[in-house]
Amino acid sequence: MPLRPQSLALTTDLYELTMSAAYFKRGLVSEATFELFVRELPVNRGYLVACGLEQALEYLEGLRFTDQDIAYLQGLPVFSAIPDGFWSYLSDLRFTGDVEAIPEGTPVMAEEPLLVVTAPLIEAQLVETYLLSMINFQTLIATKAARVVDAAQGRGIADFGLRRAHGPEAGFWAARASYVGGCIGTSNVEAARRLGIRPIGTAAHSFTMAFDDEMAAFEAYVDAYPDHSILLVDTYDTLDGVRRAATFGNKLKGVRLDSGDLAELATQARRILDEAGCTEATIVASGDLNEYKIADLVERGAPVDLFGVGTQLVTSYDAPALGGVYKLVSIGEEPRAKHSTGKATLPGKKQVVRFQDATGTYTHDLIQRSTEPVPGGAEALLVPVMRSGGRRAPSPSLDEIRSRATDRRMRLPGGVRRLRNPDLYEVGMSAALRELSRNVRNRRR
Amino acid sequence: MPLRPQSLALTTDLYELTMSAAYFKRGLVSEATFELFVRELPVNRGYLVACGLEQALEYLEGLRFTDQDIAYLQGLPVFSAIPDGFWSYLSDLRFTGDVEAIPEGTPVMAEEPLLVVTAPLIEAQLVETYLLSMINFQTLIATKAARVVDAAQGRGIADFGLRRAHGPEAGFWAARASYVGGCIGTSNVEAARRLGIRPIGTAAHSFTMAFDDEMAAFEAYVDAYPDHSILLVDTYDTLDGVRRAATFGNKLKGVRLDSGDLAELATQARRILDEAGCTEATIVASGDLNEYKIADLVERGAPVDLFGVGTQLVTSYDAPALGGVYKLVSIGEEPRAKHSTGKATLPGKKQVVRFQDATGTYTHDLIQRSTEPVPGGAEALLVPVMRSGGRRAPSPSLDEIRSRATDRRMRLPGGVRRLRNPDLYEVGMSAALRELSRNVRNRRR
Repeated sequence: MPLRPQSLALTTDLYELTMSAAYFKRGLVSEATFELFVRELPVNRGYLVACGLEQALEYLEGLRFTDQDIAYLQGLPVFSAIPDGFWSYLSDLRFTGDVEAIPEGTPVMAEEPLLVVTAPLIEAQLVETYLLSMINFQTLIATKAARVVDAAQGRGIADFGLRRAHGPEAGFWAARASYVGGCIGTSNVEAARRLGIRPIGTAAHSFTMAFDDEMAAFEAYVDAYPDHSILLVDTYDTLDGVRRAATFGNKLKGVRLDSGDLAELATQARRILDEAGCTEATIVASGDLNEYKIADLVERGAPVDLFGVGTQLVTSYDAPALGGVYKLVSIGEEPRAKHSTGKATLPGKKQVVRFQDATGTYTHDLIQRSTEPVPGGAEALLVPVMRSGGRRAPSPSLDEIRSRATDRRMRLPGGVRRLRNPDLYEVGMSAALRELSRNVRNRRR
Repeated sequence: MPLRPQSLALTTDLYELTMSAAYFKRGLVSEATFELFVRELPVNRGYLVACGLEQALEYLEGLRFTDQDIAYLQGLPVFSAIPDGFWSYLSDLRFTGDVEAIPEGTPVMAEEPLLVVTAPLIEAQLVETYLLSMINFQTLIATKAARVVDAAQGRGIADFGLRRAHGPEAGFWAARASYVGGCIGTSNVEAARRLGIRPIGTAAHSFTMAFDDEMAAFEAYVDAYPDHSILLVDTYDTLDGVRRAATFGNKLKGVRLDSGDLAELATQARRILDEAGCTEATIVASGDLNEYKIADLVERGAPVDLFGVGTQLVTSYDAPALGGVYKLVSIGEEPRAKHSTGKATLPGKKQVVRFQDATGTYTHDLIQRSTEPVPGGAEALLVPVMRSGGRRAPSPSLDEIRSRATDRRMRLPGGVRRLRNPDLYEVGMSAALRELSRNVRNRRR
């Protein structure tokens, strides 16, 4: 049996289990609320695109510890003083809690809870690591994709990143998140199949090199794909390659440029193609692209129709991790907070409300206590998605999520979407939340 | 059924399949050799630690296209002109090729093939994306881990990164690669279980916050783990936390610091612990650590026994992708190369030989043609691992791989292992390889 992660329940940090067993031993079974949020936006990001909720809910629905899982844990020396009752508790454990979430595709800001989990303490604690892992990564990549898509100003973006993703599965999740962020397709066939995304591909240099010369390779490709041939033209000499490709006339769907000065080469390629009558042939550009380079190419007027973006997209190269955290905000009826240097948290269950002007443009958000009324004209971003461990409603389709992402992003003030040094979107805190925070802190002192 | 990548065969770029079908249509069935290598070392890296081969071989052994996979492909418009024969070919396809590889754990340099695949063209082509995805990522992380371990100068490093990895599966592969690079354990329970690594954990702030006060939380933890309690002390006030922890005397296994000035706090914590007689209690430090910060803490004499490293380790934060490529180097008996600007390749199947001095320290490598004899005193790094699709020998254990990584890394010149601006390790090219490269290039012109 090939080595693979098998147990989702054990895909967690050991301390979630040690804490749970200690809670159990003390009979600490109160209901607790945890909130998942990001303390600071990554460099050059004015917003995040919430993503990964669907997988988070699937995980919560399916959470089970098998006998095998439990046998492994029982054998660990650290658990030697844990009573047997804990293992039967774990064996019966299902996620029975409530979840509020900001829907996938919604722009979110620092300090705003994306996910609020209320459940018996052990259930709420155990799920921390998996939820963070999935939501941190998909949100990171959906955000990066949205930036790349914005930079392209209407030209298509395709995810070409599987080979540089953090393993094959990260490539899969990156394909999903990239699509949410606005990509039009992916090179990843399994992601395309499982997610209903359009698979996109051209050819590699090895294809050209496998034939005696470039023309023989092009002929073979056009023979196999008479209506779909996008020929890679830079294996030997790019403009020679374009000239050869142009000889296929109507049958040529496009060319791909993967090296050199893409703006210059695209301009020359366009001229060659047009002069040969291949006016419908598209130009695909690839090669270590990102939002900054694409914005530059667009500004220079490079006649590129589709950008294939790999490494920099699927690793969010300039900001390769999202520091989402999952913090206890209340236990029983009591609000809680931590005061660690530089890592303090706000107590109590919250709601995020978003205000818009008459044109529908978002103006600012307010983080308030969940019990406060939603101000008139504002939208409550956190909505119930799970009650007693069951879904509240069927999931939106990936296309619905993608549309939401596009629509909502366009309603952010333009400066917040700027690729570099974006404006800070205003996020306030309600008076009641501020007061609660002060009280909890003073009580602790 | 939860959404997950299921088909490993379709976990590939679409173009691998379009090229394969075009090869098939032209009857291009010659044997081809592809080599996987990295063009340039990432920033501040003087070497890479080869990692991920085991998963690459498992993939090759298990490669199958199911009827479902094929039905999906047949339904794609791009394949409408592909003859039915291709689909039966794909249905019967197994990997029947030969593989040479540099064993996992070996330090490798830019331009050195880590993996050499010789197989019928279509088989060799189809496997490109998956092999790259797995080997790029694990090599990236094993390399990062080796740097972090070196920086700690004998203090232990534990992988705490699952929550910030690029999804749960990336966290799993990162745990494997981190262990290869020299970590002593992981917080990831499933990775620990499946890989036989030591699981490591302490407690989170939420644990302390779940009780009425810090002391109640500590008492509950020590009650549950009388011999294994590492108490997290920075939820409210770090030094108060250490003083409370110290009251447990012999039962206290250690404390964890997760915020603030770690060098200063570790020094004060050590004094408090020692004065209270807790001389055996260890100090664990965590909080956005990396090799640079750890080197600094070690230099400042911070009395830390174990560093928990998360985000920066499992994402290789300062260099979050490895640009490994997989290039055709010969087809049939004929050597091939590409000449793209800045992306030219060396033709023909190769071998990498490594020279050492009398003390066993590596002095330089030579990339040569695979047919050249290995010079006396040099070691051939590429060894046969698969013949006709079958393994040549059982896989080494993960501990064997980890030992190899440590042993071989220590034999690199010290300057090559420097954390910043490392010395360049000399990699030469044999006269025969240089001549072949010239000939292939001239022939093309």
